[in-house]
Amino acid sequence: MRVGVVGASGYVGGETLRLLVNHPEVEITVVSSRNHAGQYLHRIQPSLKGFTDLVFSDLDYEEMASKCDLVFTAVPHGSAAEIVKALYDRGVKIVDLSADYRLHEQDGYGKWYGWTHPHPEYLERSVYGVPELHREQIRKAQLVSCPGCMAVTSTLALAPLIREGMVETEHIVVDSKIGSSGAGSGSGTAHAMRAGVIRPYKPSGHRHTGEIEQELSGVAGGRIRVSMSPHAVDVVRGILCTAHTFLAREVDEKEVWRAYRKAYGEERFVRLIRDKKGLYKFPDPKFVVGSNFCDVGFDMDPDNNRLVALSASDNLMKGAAGSAIQNMNVMCGFDESAGLMYTPLTPV
Amino acid sequence: MRVGVVGASGYVGGETLRLLVNHPEVEITVVSSRNHAGQYLHRIQPSLKGFTDLVFSDLDYEEMASKCDLVFTAVPHGSAAEIVKALYDRGVKIVDLSADYRLHEQDGYGKWYGWTHPHPEYLERSVYGVPELHREQIRKAQLVSCPGCMAVTSTLALAPLIREGMVETEHIVVDSKIGSSGAGSGSGTAHAMRAGVIRPYKPSGHRHTGEIEQELSGVAGGRIRVSMSPHAVDVVRGILCTAHTFLAREVDEKEVWRAYRKAYGEERFVRLIRDKKGLYKFPDPKFVVGSNFCDVGFDMDPDNNRLVALSASDNLMKGAAGSAIQNMNVMCGFDESAGLMYTPLTPV
Amino acid sequence: MRVGVVGASGYVGGETLRLLVNHPEVEITVVSSRNHAGQYLHRIQPSLKGFTDLVFSDLDYEEMASKCDLVFTAVPHGSAAEIVKALYDRGVKIVDLSADYRLHEQDGYGKWYGWTHPHPEYLERSVYGVPELHREQIRKAQLVSCPGCMAVTSTLALAPLIREGMVETEHIVVDSKIGSSGAGSGSGTAHAMRAGVIRPYKPSGHRHTGEIEQELSGVAGGRIRVSMSPHAVDVVRGILCTAHTFLAREVDEKEVWRAYRKAYGEERFVRLIRDKKGLYKFPDPKFVVGSNFCDVGFDMDPDNNRLVALSASDNLMKGAAGSAIQNMNVMCGFDESAGLMYTPLTPV
Amino acid sequence: MRVGVVGASGYVGGETLRLLVNHPEVEITVVSSRNHAGQYLHRIQPSLKGFTDLVFSDLDYEEMASKCDLVFTAVPHGSAAEIVKALYDRGVKIVDLSADYRLHEQDGYGKWYGWTHPHPEYLERSVYGVPELHREQIRKAQLVSCPGCMAVTSTLALAPLIREGMVETEHIVVDSKIGSSGAGSGSGTAHAMRAGVIRPYKPSGHRHTGEIEQELSGVAGGRIRVSMSPHAVDVVRGILCTAHTFLAREVDEKEVWRAYRKAYGEERFVRLIRDKKGLYKFPDPKFVVGSNFCDVGFDMDPDNNRLVALSASDNLMKGAAGSAIQNMNVMCGFDESAGLMYTPLTPV
Repeated sequence: MRVGVVGASGYVGGETLRLLVNHPEVEITVVSSRNHAGQYLHRIQPSLKGFTDLVFSDLDYEEMASKCDLVFTAVPHGSAAEIVKALYDRGVKIVDLSADYRLHEQDGYGKWYGWTHPHPEYLERSVYGVPELHREQIRKAQLVSCPGCMAVTSTLALAPLIREGMVETEHIVVDSKIGSSGAGSGSGTAHAMRAGVIRPYKPSGHRHTGEIEQELSGVAGGRIRVSMSPHAVDVVRGILCTAHTFLAREVDEKEVWRAYRKAYGEERFVRLIRDKKGLYKFPDPKFVVGSNFCDVGFDMDPDNNRLVALSASDNLMKGAAGSAIQNMNVMCGFDESAGLMYTPLTPV
Repeated sequence: MRVGVVGASGYVGGETLRLLVNHPEVEITVVSSRNHAGQYLHRIQPSLKGFTDLVFSDLDYEEMASKCDLVFTAVPHGSAAEIVKALYDRGVKIVDLSADYRLHEQDGYGKWYGWTHPHPEYLERSVYGVPELHREQIRKAQLVSCPGCMAVTSTLALAPLIREGMVETEHIVVDSKIGSSGAGSGSGTAHAMRAGVIRPYKPSGHRHTGEIEQELSGVAGGRIRVSMSPHAVDVVRGILCTAHTFLAREVDEKEVWRAYRKAYGEERFVRLIRDKKGLYKFPDPKFVVGSNFCDVGFDMDPDNNRLVALSASDNLMKGAAGSAIQNMNVMCGFDESAGLMYTPLTPV
Repeated sequence: MRVGVVGASGYVGGETLRLLVNHPEVEITVVSSRNHAGQYLHRIQPSLKGFTDLVFSDLDYEEMASKCDLVFTAVPHGSAAEIVKALYDRGVKIVDLSADYRLHEQDGYGKWYGWTHPHPEYLERSVYGVPELHREQIRKAQLVSCPGCMAVTSTLALAPLIREGMVETEHIVVDSKIGSSGAGSGSGTAHAMRAGVIRPYKPSGHRHTGEIEQELSGVAGGRIRVSMSPHAVDVVRGILCTAHTFLAREVDEKEVWRAYRKAYGEERFVRLIRDKKGLYKFPDPKFVVGSNFCDVGFDMDPDNNRLVALSASDNLMKGAAGSAIQNMNVMCGFDESAGLMYTPLTPV
Repeated sequence: MRVGVVGASGYVGGETLRLLVNHPEVEITVVSSRNHAGQYLHRIQPSLKGFTDLVFSDLDYEEMASKCDLVFTAVPHGSAAEIVKALYDRGVKIVDLSADYRLHEQDGYGKWYGWTHPHPEYLERSVYGVPELHREQIRKAQLVSCPGCMAVTSTLALAPLIREGMVETEHIVVDSKIGSSGAGSGSGTAHAMRAGVIRPYKPSGHRHTGEIEQELSGVAGGRIRVSMSPHAVDVVRGILCTAHTFLAREVDEKEVWRAYRKAYGEERFVRLIRDKKGLYKFPDPKFVVGSNFCDVGFDMDPDNNRLVALSASDNLMKGAAGSAIQNMNVMCGFDESAGLMYTPLTPV
């Protein structure tokens, strides 16, 4: 299958290409970048040196539509809306890595992004790209929107608990910790001021909250509120979500395990993590870096009637490019794990 | 004044000595260490090379009592109980940096430490060493117990909110992030397995919870439960406590500020942090490293009726040795900030 | 092909297994570990969870010989000598990741390791496992010894310069910088004391010097001395070798390029790095992590008649397990890059 | 004494202020910054919050000259030339932290900076600010130019060896490793691309080479060439210089020690580091961070007739602001260590 990447010079575009160059089912035909047209891809994405001789081109909808069966759009929020529509209208399959088609409700863009969506009528055509939740819809979709990195990571930890009605839905706190690659290649604080931080950067009102609430409300069959607070920490890749919940009814450890096994027992990219001793008792992004896994685990706090759900992912993989490939695989009828069975790099 | 340090070979002992060598009011007369007796202090504590020619000695109660007016005990939990009693009985002033005299109730040691305190009758003679809460008692105490690093950091963020009755006391979540020096010099995971972690190491039941509940219950005048979950992150020094609370009544931003100013307006070592833009909107341990400050700030989350209180400290300073010196200063009638007015190292 | 791994619980053993679980030509039949026999492999090697249900066994030569066509030995220096001989005598192919069969001369073990080799007669049966230098011999070998991580990295940078007689052989300085995973899983300094170091740990007499001198002397056809000084820096994976050499005759930039192209133009795992601007002017291990590449580049210093050769690798890949797989591929007639075409993880 | 700081918003300006706010002999009267005039100093330099209520002003020569006895100029290379001259002509004492008055020869600026110095006649009035080499001249100077961070660090390691004629002067290699704060606050690579690097950023022709050659030539009494290659590593503060030299005559370890003791035995800010075992055998910047020390040590490599001299400093302290204060102390007749006796932060 012929694929293209729009926005191929950023971290997410680069990671998508890193996976595509080794994917058994695809040929990369077009990589576009506004700023680097005419240059070799590997000059901007040094990890690809030796894997490809592709050259960046300018974005041209007609050319892209004629040369690609599926396109990954990896451009900043706000920039994707138009590109996605243009390619959609030309019949191309699209996996969008921006936020522009994640929310189903136009109003959500006003609330979380302070933005009026230019093509709200396309929102309902977009499927939220978490195969663990929406596999059947993704299979039939022309447009799939990849989830935000903190959104997919925390949603996978919380969804089974909410589905089973285990936790109060008034006091769900998601405390997230994330690495610097999440900022994207265009921004990012200089190393001297970013190294060693434990920086609360948006204790309330973070945009990913909208997605999490949308998805968990869908699971619950009713309106769910989530209190999400992200923190920047000194890693490049990796997210840990610590979801503090309070039990709505009596629940024991076994029942929680059953809920998670029921949800993810057949899933290739969700691993349940639990050990009584050692360094691997709970999920830790250190042990998923480079892979498409979302590791999920939990702890019970009987003193406080609390259930702490924990999930870890690589924000550029399951949190972005890995999910994108997984979605493509589902959309195109490939083996869902094709080109994705990377082990984590350990230690790294 | 003549001071001694028991357990001078560890991180906390080293940090205490680092402060003492430059303190204007003291002379260090004895440094003891079981493993290093006879060696130069600076061979084990390289940062002290050029500041002292002290030699480690074996611990001898009589010698210590005769040569020291005040002793800092910086030995692991469980080891201090006996040493503190022995020195106390000999009339020496003591600043204890272990956990052995922090809890007022003997039962607490059973619950949080799985340990039976050998000298419970001394617990009531010990003052919990947070001058911002107990200055008058510390002034008159012979024995002061320095708080746990995560305990003092989170308590300072929460105490004013609880004192003013602003927050629900059923759903207080403290999500802490801490560096590797908190593990002490005797343990500690090898770098290759510790670098880059975001590791939940005790999502429920962490020992410092006992102290926090003790102190906040004292402030509230009633039993308070706290849900504390610490995480190891890739810094050496530093703690961030993110306290997620839910409002018990209508409260606006100004009222929160007033509460904090009332509590800490005159305090030398608590800084209130808030900016509308830039990198310093909220507390971040990166900007307190090397200093005795506990920076405190907050954010309001009206969507969820949530108030996020944030506090940052250097776990070896305000979280250990800095508090120890501050307590000594209060106990001995020195200027409370003597030998402590270090600026943070920025950037580091 | 059926393969086994001895010493499967360490970093190098784990990395070898990480590559083997996805290798298209092999089946892993035995993983042994003295300390973990009976346990699931993935409890000790968490990155393998989801890829294998193998269980550690005790090392049994007969069983290993009957179940494996080829065995990787990944045990500490000194422990491999016996195991390799035992398996060799039973006709098994061996890729040894220890230092025990790297040097051709028995005396070298005395000088560099202070050790008397118990089976010196096997030294000549072992081929030094750098396919870029000894491909034909490796093809026919029963026993291949993988190079030391700093040895292979610096040798690849220097060999072409020495082959072409470009540099003085009296003043070759190799200044190496390496991450913490090089220390192995059994040792390793605690994070708090290892983070942030730039530590010269063996400015003279490092063991890898013996290998480098052996290999470069072979290339030169005469005795070559190398001054190697390694430094520990704050990464987990990665080596940079900065080889400072002085020109033996007039040489221009183009001639150096020709020498490198002649040596490595057809090599899959040596990339020549050079750009006039941007962040990728010279090799940097950040851009090879997770891959089997050794990136090579250089700079001319006409003021001092100096040629600085630079090389970067992932010490667990080209510096250990990646080389091991590459050697196996050559020994067994597989495509040399089978199971090895991982792109670097960027950024990580 | 009344002091001012020009360029007070950068890392070096901030570090200078960090030291000045606690200096016993000075009062800070003016802090200027082109971009931040009118703002509180502590909004830009968060570590100073609680230590000062100073407000940035625009640079006004007359005002500065009337309000300050001594001024620190901490602006980028090229920008200082004019400011220093203007203040010098008004009779103010100046400690310049830029490179603009370091070289004695106008030609050096052409060679190393590609720049024509606008006021070459002032170069001879400037004293190179290393008290360990030029204390008497500094005492009498109106203008002192602080050395480059890698220059002072490597020069202190090499000067005694060259003074005693121990090493060949044709093959001096200085391989430097430095943290990200050396890049200054105005530039600096984003964390995701800077973390984990071991990046050779200027293997030949680095500007500090000019200073090192100037100073060592002065010590030698003849022209000395130095081959300097800096590398960026993943720390914020810290420099290690590894100086690889070859012996010019027979020299034993004791003689090297004597040379260093003779040079630095009375110096407060040079520590000689050597231990046979443990983690502190050689200098390591980890153990000087936050202090004004330059730690110096060495190793002998008899195989190669090599002497490896090693030195470590905090690039913002001895490599910049610490040296600036030390120079001020000498210029003004204060105790040379006034306001500078900070112990390193360990561990950090």
